Amino acid sequence: MEERTIRLDLCSSRKEKPKTQQLEFGRVFTDHMFIMDYSDELGWNDPRIVPYQPLSIDPSAMVFHYGQSVFEGLKAYLTPNGEAQLFRPEKNFHRLNRSNSRLCIPPIDEEFAIKAIQQLVALEKDWIPDAEGTSLYIRPFIISTEPYLGVAPSRHYKFIIILSPVGAYYKEGINPIKIAVENQYVRAVTGGTGEAKTGGNYASSLKAQESVAGKGFAQVLWLDGVERKYVEEVGSMNVFFKINGEVVTPALNGSILEGVTRNSVIQLLNHWNVPIVERKISMEEVYQAHQDGVLEEAFGAGTAAVVSPIGQLTWNDESLIINDAKTGNVAKKLYDTLTGIQYGRVDDPFNWVVKVEENCEMGLRASV
Amino acid sequence: MEERTIRLDLCSSRKEKPKTQQLEFGRVFTDHMFIMDYSDELGWNDPRIVPYQPLSIDPSAMVFHYGQSVFEGLKAYLTPNGEAQLFRPEKNFHRLNRSNSRLCIPPIDEEFAIKAIQQLVALEKDWIPDAEGTSLYIRPFIISTEPYLGVAPSRHYKFIIILSPVGAYYKEGINPIKIAVENQYVRAVTGGTGEAKTGGNYASSLKAQESVAGKGFAQVLWLDGVERKYVEEVGSMNVFFKINGEVVTPALNGSILEGVTRNSVIQLLNHWNVPIVERKISMEEVYQAHQDGVLEEAFGAGTAAVVSPIGQLTWNDESLIINDAKTGNVAKKLYDTLTGIQYGRVDDPFNWVVKVEENCEMGLRASV
Ligand SMILES: Cc1ncc(COP(=O)(O)O)c(C=O)c1O
Ligand SMILES: Cc1ncc(COP(=O)(O)O)c(C=O)c1O
Repeated sequence: MEERTIRLDLCSSRKEKPKTQQLEFGRVFTDHMFIMDYSDELGWNDPRIVPYQPLSIDPSAMVFHYGQSVFEGLKAYLTPNGEAQLFRPEKNFHRLNRSNSRLCIPPIDEEFAIKAIQQLVALEKDWIPDAEGTSLYIRPFIISTEPYLGVAPSRHYKFIIILSPVGAYYKEGINPIKIAVENQYVRAVTGGTGEAKTGGNYASSLKAQESVAGKGFAQVLWLDGVERKYVEEVGSMNVFFKINGEVVTPALNGSILEGVTRNSVIQLLNHWNVPIVERKISMEEVYQAHQDGVLEEAFGAGTAAVVSPIGQLTWNDESLIINDAKTGNVAKKLYDTLTGIQYGRVDDPFNWVVKVEENCEMGLRASV
Repeated sequence: MEERTIRLDLCSSRKEKPKTQQLEFGRVFTDHMFIMDYSDELGWNDPRIVPYQPLSIDPSAMVFHYGQSVFEGLKAYLTPNGEAQLFRPEKNFHRLNRSNSRLCIPPIDEEFAIKAIQQLVALEKDWIPDAEGTSLYIRPFIISTEPYLGVAPSRHYKFIIILSPVGAYYKEGINPIKIAVENQYVRAVTGGTGEAKTGGNYASSLKAQESVAGKGFAQVLWLDGVERKYVEEVGSMNVFFKINGEVVTPALNGSILEGVTRNSVIQLLNHWNVPIVERKISMEEVYQAHQDGVLEEAFGAGTAAVVSPIGQLTWNDESLIINDAKTGNVAKKLYDTLTGIQYGRVDDPFNWVVKVEENCEMGLRASV
C-alpha cells in the first residue's frame, strides 16, 4: 500500500481536561479524532485528524439498520518518565481485520492504522492522565455508511479513532467481583459472530447484564449456546480457573473473543512455568472442583480491568465462594506484571510495548 | 399517554420523484421524515416531521459501538381509486416493542407511532408510486444515541421513520428462486436475539449471503443454531412447505422472527381450510418428502416479496427441484390474495387494511 499522509485539521480551542478524581470510563473525549473513508471506487481514502465532532450520517445509512460495524479497544499509558506507550496494538488491528472479514467489511492496512493511532495519541498526549491506574482509552471503530436499505454489505464505510481519558478500574486496589452464571440468554454460538468484535454481540448481552445488575453481580458468566454447559466468557472478559495447580481457560471455539489480555496471560504463565491449558471446561466441572476443594482461583482478563478476580460465582441457587473471596496469588502476580509492563515500570521481556514517538507528527500536513 | 402534537417543519423545495422503471428498493427517500427523541428525564419527546436530512450524532454514540438498535418494515399501497393504505401496521409496532424489550430499549406508544406514520404518509402521498406491484416502503427504526462507551443500555434514543418508493419485487410476475441450505453460518440461536428485529441479526447474515450470491442463489435457508438440523427461515422471510396436502411452517421458537406475512398466510390457509401446522421441521424431513414425491411446494413469505416460491433447494451437493421449479397453486393464491388485499383490489375479510386518512394532517402545527 502506498505511503499515505494524514491530513491535519486542528481545533481552534482545546477543551478543559477532567480532574483525576472525576475520571470515569468513556464519557469524556479528547480534542481530536482520526477519520478515514472507504468507497468501492477509492478504497480507504482521505485519512485525516480533525476536531472531535458529531458525524453527519444519512438516516438510511446501513449501520443504523443492519448493524454492520466492528470496533477495538486498547489504551495508551504514561510511563514514570512521562513517555506514552501502547500495549500490543498490532494484536488489536489483526483482530479488527478478522472482525472485518466476518462482517464483510473491507480490510484496513494494520500498520497504517497503528501509525494513525501514534499520530493521534502524540497530538493528544496532554490528555493521558498520570495518576495510578489511569490511562487514555483508544476506540477504533468502523461503521457502514451507504444510504441503502437493502440487506447487503455496504459499499461505504468510515474508520474512526476516538480517545477518552479513563480512571482507574479499581479505585481501592484490585478487588474480587461477584458473577452470576447465565442460564437463559446466550451471547454467541458457533457459526455466529462471537469471535468478532461487532456491535450485535454487545447489544444481545445487555438483557442478561440488566437482569443480574440489580442483584449485586458485576457481570454474567456466559455458557455455550449449543449445550449450555461449557464456560465461554465472563462479561466482556475471557475467563481463567486455577484448579489443583493448573490454570484452565476455555479454548477458542469460534464463539469466544480472542482477548489480547488472554493471550498475554497465557504467555506469562508459560514463561513462569505455571501449567496452563486451553480446553473445553464445563460449569459442572468448575462446580465439582469447588466441591472437592481444588478450585483455587478464578479470574477474568481484559483490557479494561486487566485481571479481575472472581470472589463469588452463583449458579442457579448455589453460590461458590472462591479463595475466601480474596484475590489469589496468580491473579495478583498477573495483574502486577501486566500493569507493570503497560506502565513501563518493569521489564518487557516479550517486546509487547510500542512507544508513541514524540516526533511522529512528522508527515502531518496542517490544513488550517 | 397524553395526546401529543406532531410538530411540522416542511422543506422548502421538493425533490424530483424517480420514474417507475427506475424504482429500486431502499435507495431513494422522500422529502420528509419523522423523528422523536428519548431521554431518561423526558421519556419519548418532541415528535416532529422535518425535511429528510442527515443525522448529527456523536462518534461515541452507542449505536456505532454496541449495536443497540431495532427496526421495522412495512408498506403503504395505493388503491385503484387513489387512496393510500397500510397493511396491519399494529403488528409491526407490537413487534417493535417486543424487539425493544429484548434490546433494553424503552417501549414506544404503538398507537401514537401509527398516527405518526399516517401523518407522514399523508404528507408524502405523492411519493407512493402507482404502477403494478410498486409501493412506498416505510422504515421505522430506533437507535441508541448516548455518547458513552460503557456496555450498558443507552439513556438516549431516537425513533425515526423514513419512506422510500420501491419498485415491483417481481418485474415479470411471481417467479421461483433458488435457495442454498446454510451449513456453516448461523443466523440466531435460542437465548439470542433471533426473534427481535435488530441490526446484529442482519450483520451476522451477510457472510452467508455473500458466500452463495456468486453461485446463483437468491438467499440461504437457515438451520437452527443448536442441532443444525431444523429449518428456521429463508433469507429475510419465513418459510413454508406443502407436504402431502398439508402446509408446514417452523414453529416460533425464540430464534425465528415472527413475520406479519407469516401470520397472515396462516390465517388465510385456515380460512380456506387448507391444513396448516406450525411445528419443528428438519431439513432431513424436507429432503425425504422430496424423495417420496410429496414435497408439493415450498415458499418464503415476507413484506418485501409477499410470497416467494422456492424452485430449487440445494443442500450439500444435492439440488431438490420443487414443483418443476414452477410457482405452486397455494403460493400463487396466497400471493394474489395478499396483494389483492394490500392494494385494495379484493375484499378484506380480516380487517387487515388501515386507511391513511387524508385529513390526518389535522393537529399538525406548522413551524415554518
Ligand atoms: C466479549 C469480550 N471478551 C473478551 C474481551 C477481552 O479482550 P481484550 O483482552 O483484548 O481486551 C473483551 C474486551 O475487549 C470482550 O469484549
Ligand atoms: C429475518 C426475517 N424473517 C422474516 C421476515 C418476514 O417478516 P414480515 O412478514 O413481517 O415482513 C423478515 C422481514 O421482515 C425478516 O427480516
